[in-house]
Amino acid sequence: MSTEKVKNKRITLKDYVTGYPKEEDLLLGSSDLELKVPTGSNAVLLKNLYLSCDPYMRAKMSKPLVKSYTDAFTPGSVITGYGVGKVVDSGHPNFQAGDLVWGITGWEEYTLIKAPEILVKIKYTDVPLSYYIGILGMPGLTAYVGFNVISSPKKGETVYVSAASGAVGQLVGQFAKLMGCYVVGSAGSQEKVDLLKSKFGFDEAFNYKEEHDLNAALKRYFPDGIDIYFENVGGPMLDAVLLNMRNHGRIAVCGMISQYNLTEKDSVHNLFCIISKRIRMEGFIEPDHKHLYPQFLELVIQYIREGKLVYVEDIAEGIENAPAALIGLFSGRNVGKQVVSIARE
Amino acid sequence: MSTEKVKNKRITLKDYVTGYPKEEDLLLGSSDLELKVPTGSNAVLLKNLYLSCDPYMRAKMSKPLVKSYTDAFTPGSVITGYGVGKVVDSGHPNFQAGDLVWGITGWEEYTLIKAPEILVKIKYTDVPLSYYIGILGMPGLTAYVGFNVISSPKKGETVYVSAASGAVGQLVGQFAKLMGCYVVGSAGSQEKVDLLKSKFGFDEAFNYKEEHDLNAALKRYFPDGIDIYFENVGGPMLDAVLLNMRNHGRIAVCGMISQYNLTEKDSVHNLFCIISKRIRMEGFIEPDHKHLYPQFLELVIQYIREGKLVYVEDIAEGIENAPAALIGLFSGRNVGKQVVSIARE
Repeated sequence: MSTEKVKNKRITLKDYVTGYPKEEDLLLGSSDLELKVPTGSNAVLLKNLYLSCDPYMRAKMSKPLVKSYTDAFTPGSVITGYGVGKVVDSGHPNFQAGDLVWGITGWEEYTLIKAPEILVKIKYTDVPLSYYIGILGMPGLTAYVGFNVISSPKKGETVYVSAASGAVGQLVGQFAKLMGCYVVGSAGSQEKVDLLKSKFGFDEAFNYKEEHDLNAALKRYFPDGIDIYFENVGGPMLDAVLLNMRNHGRIAVCGMISQYNLTEKDSVHNLFCIISKRIRMEGFIEPDHKHLYPQFLELVIQYIREGKLVYVEDIAEGIENAPAALIGLFSGRNVGKQVVSIARE
Repeated sequence: MSTEKVKNKRITLKDYVTGYPKEEDLLLGSSDLELKVPTGSNAVLLKNLYLSCDPYMRAKMSKPLVKSYTDAFTPGSVITGYGVGKVVDSGHPNFQAGDLVWGITGWEEYTLIKAPEILVKIKYTDVPLSYYIGILGMPGLTAYVGFNVISSPKKGETVYVSAASGAVGQLVGQFAKLMGCYVVGSAGSQEKVDLLKSKFGFDEAFNYKEEHDLNAALKRYFPDGIDIYFENVGGPMLDAVLLNMRNHGRIAVCGMISQYNLTEKDSVHNLFCIISKRIRMEGFIEPDHKHLYPQFLELVIQYIREGKLVYVEDIAEGIENAPAALIGLFSGRNVGKQVVSIARE
């Protein structure tokens, strides 16, 4: 009884990265693979369909200095991330060939998942499957938790979202509009600014790269101040926001992408505003809130079907283009959620 | 019918202050005063017994640039602050001569309070009256709210308090011990460090001025990290604390005394820890929580009577010494709560 063998194309980390990552830090290679789980194992063999490019992956490319909530990648090994896949073979009673799943997988064509309990079976297939690494996956739950839970929003409040056209930001803005808030987003190009207003329904949007004075820009869009800041970027933007927060404002700290590639982090000077304005600033990560996924999924799938939520993806084709897609996040090359399409079903 | 006239000694602000305040920024003078409220007015004339020196007063000495929760002092006018006084004459039905009260008053021997509704009548006189500008006044409620409400403490958690021997810090440490927490405090002299351990029951204490590496100092006292940081100082201390917080830690931001006299504020670089450790950092001011005062008073007066809470005051004698007492806060000259005694009952 022979099993099919394939060349499994894969992306490995060349070495730990300092500063801005480059495409050359990621290597395309291949290994031989039998399309079958080892006899007696309860693993699952996955054919990867879509891979997700997420900013948090930058931290995993650095040499681990302090223990973090996420382990570093190993140089020479396949990197990992969220993906959507189809089960090719299964030794696990909960999964069988043909099942569509999403969860943490390898950046390769096929991945042997040794602990398949981490995989989530895909329930609804009337939406693009790639949505399960975007609006219906980790970025979606991140936006939902960060806005609806951490930010304690109320109808009529003013909301500012940075990196607003990204995988998370575009949803935060839409959740805020559904709540009846006034929403302004910033992004790094005219194309993205247009998208924010025309596609996602932000009340206003601006290109932060064209503002030499972020404080003045925020004052222009928020003459009475900001109730909720959804923080995706950190650094000078956070400093300017602090000056423009309203009393009892909330800052949901989701990411600080402007800081991830700096060996010397930008400094923040205006923290005293936290006292004078009684600001609550709270960091969160999606894995702490997984228990909310079922209610989130039912809500959002319904909104998608009704056209109340839309999602823009930037899809790179083929694993050969995966390194450039990931690196592009840090220069803002992506427009919307960055996805890599690996294979069709 | 003649009324007694007195020379009313008073402290005025010479001019707006930049950088570190000096004694010469405050002027001792006097004005003539009739010891009687104007006919038909509902004012109260107060004989001031104790005046409170509090760090927030520094902000009121600066030229107002941005609207804050507290108005600036007016150059040439008497400065104001919390005080304990005795009613000499009253045109208000709720107050009569002889009543003991606390609240915002002038830095002078006698003050005509035009809106006496802001004054609180003193209920218990079996404790020093000066306690009503300390443990039973604004600093007491500040410590209570900041620890018991904002910090969401749990038995067994680790708590770090900076400026720990001050008006607020000494109480935070004691509240934390009453809750069953492990508590470490820092202060700026050996005398204060000794006080923290011997008088207030802190588990450990250190002199931050003798630590060239605050990060290393905190790791020594908190090998498993800090659950709650009660922030009184800001700047480099906050930066070091961020590196040593535990996951889901809370930072109650009460003050940043190290920053008040800097025209260029210190920078903070480690805010990314807020995400990776899911930290909640929350600013608060006591006036937002006045409704908790009655329950606070009953709890704390009982603790004082039972000897479960103690309070150390640093009492300057006479209004002539009031400027030095206030300025001394910013070099940490006071040991415990800084009070100025103006008159005996």
